[in-house]
Amino acid sequence: MTELTQSSDVPAQIEFWFDFGSNYSHISAMRIEQTAAKRGVSIIWKPFLLGPIFKALGWDTSPFVIYEAMGAYMWKDMVRQCAKYGVPWRQPSAFPRLSVLPLRVALVGVDRPWIGDYCRAIMRRNFVEDRDIHTPEAVGEVLGALGLPAGDLIARAQSEPVKLKLRENTGAAQTLGVFGAPTFFARGEMFWGNDRLDDALDFAAGAPDF
Amino acid sequence: MTELTQSSDVPAQIEFWFDFGSNYSHISAMRIEQTAAKRGVSIIWKPFLLGPIFKALGWDTSPFVIYEAMGAYMWKDMVRQCAKYGVPWRQPSAFPRLSVLPLRVALVGVDRPWIGDYCRAIMRRNFVEDRDIHTPEAVGEVLGALGLPAGDLIARAQSEPVKLKLRENTGAAQTLGVFGAPTFFARGEMFWGNDRLDDALDFAAGAPDF
Repeated sequence: MTELTQSSDVPAQIEFWFDFGSNYSHISAMRIEQTAAKRGVSIIWKPFLLGPIFKALGWDTSPFVIYEAMGAYMWKDMVRQCAKYGVPWRQPSAFPRLSVLPLRVALVGVDRPWIGDYCRAIMRRNFVEDRDIHTPEAVGEVLGALGLPAGDLIARAQSEPVKLKLRENTGAAQTLGVFGAPTFFARGEMFWGNDRLDDALDFAAGAPDF
Repeated sequence: MTELTQSSDVPAQIEFWFDFGSNYSHISAMRIEQTAAKRGVSIIWKPFLLGPIFKALGWDTSPFVIYEAMGAYMWKDMVRQCAKYGVPWRQPSAFPRLSVLPLRVALVGVDRPWIGDYCRAIMRRNFVEDRDIHTPEAVGEVLGALGLPAGDLIARAQSEPVKLKLRENTGAAQTLGVFGAPTFFARGEMFWGNDRLDDALDFAAGAPDF
């Protein structure tokens, strides 16, 4: 007796774990849709809060703020990396910026066709226009500019199920061993940092195991 | 009246700041001579101690030991990165290994033609053979296998001027803003991590500023 087995031809997918306050997530957010499409990889957007992850590591803010030498270097590295990838960049005057509301809106849109445009627009506001992203006004402006119903989406973003979902994503990140952003998962393997985006996509697209 | 000005055609150089206990320094040590030679860049070897740098950041050992999730990820990343660069690798059973004596010997050989072979041999012992590197016996075996006068070199490595030089390099690293290894300097710019070795070499070889 033979049983039908499920096909192993699962679609090529990558999970993109990000926080809008994270500068290296900015580079990945700007690149990922185009780069993934070239390899036929679809994206599972995973907004989460870095803050609680950092707190669990004993940090009450970004390590780039706590460790001054690391932060000073990071700002120089960002200029070079953004130039290398052709990503627009301006060093923000506030860092890390609060990101709870725009992350909640991202959760509302996580399966919608506008998710990529929305994420890039929020990142651009933070890391190119150097403007706050956490107020309803800020998020409303971004949504309005994309032709989306800002009032409705923000109301849903502030509902209990969405608030809970952001806490769940953050807890799941911690359980998965995430300690920074961006982090990618492909075929069950974790890849940390924008520096590993191409490796992660190659692996998602079926590159042989290491 | 005109004055002769010094030529701006300074030779292309890169400073390679490393510690034999540092796993990502292993990858760079294995790659740097060949990769730099392709671009006509010469290497200034800068052995230093990561321990005091970490202590100043409030860490009493490697952050890969302190932050477990980061460490667990790093060991997976090392397998992939070494495969990507064709660098031999075995996860060491002790980490980070003591490295003072082999670093002092590196300081003795810093301008000698054997420095590259020596550094690769020490790294190989730590990160491929999984053997201690800090005893006179360990360093002596490595030097002997390279056909070098082990007794003489180890005696010089343990002299006061060389001990002082290692402290000086470590202090200089801190002053320069180094917070990890490997770190590279090219044309006055700092580049952190094996992930930035190619960027640093391109910059050393005259790539336009960012």
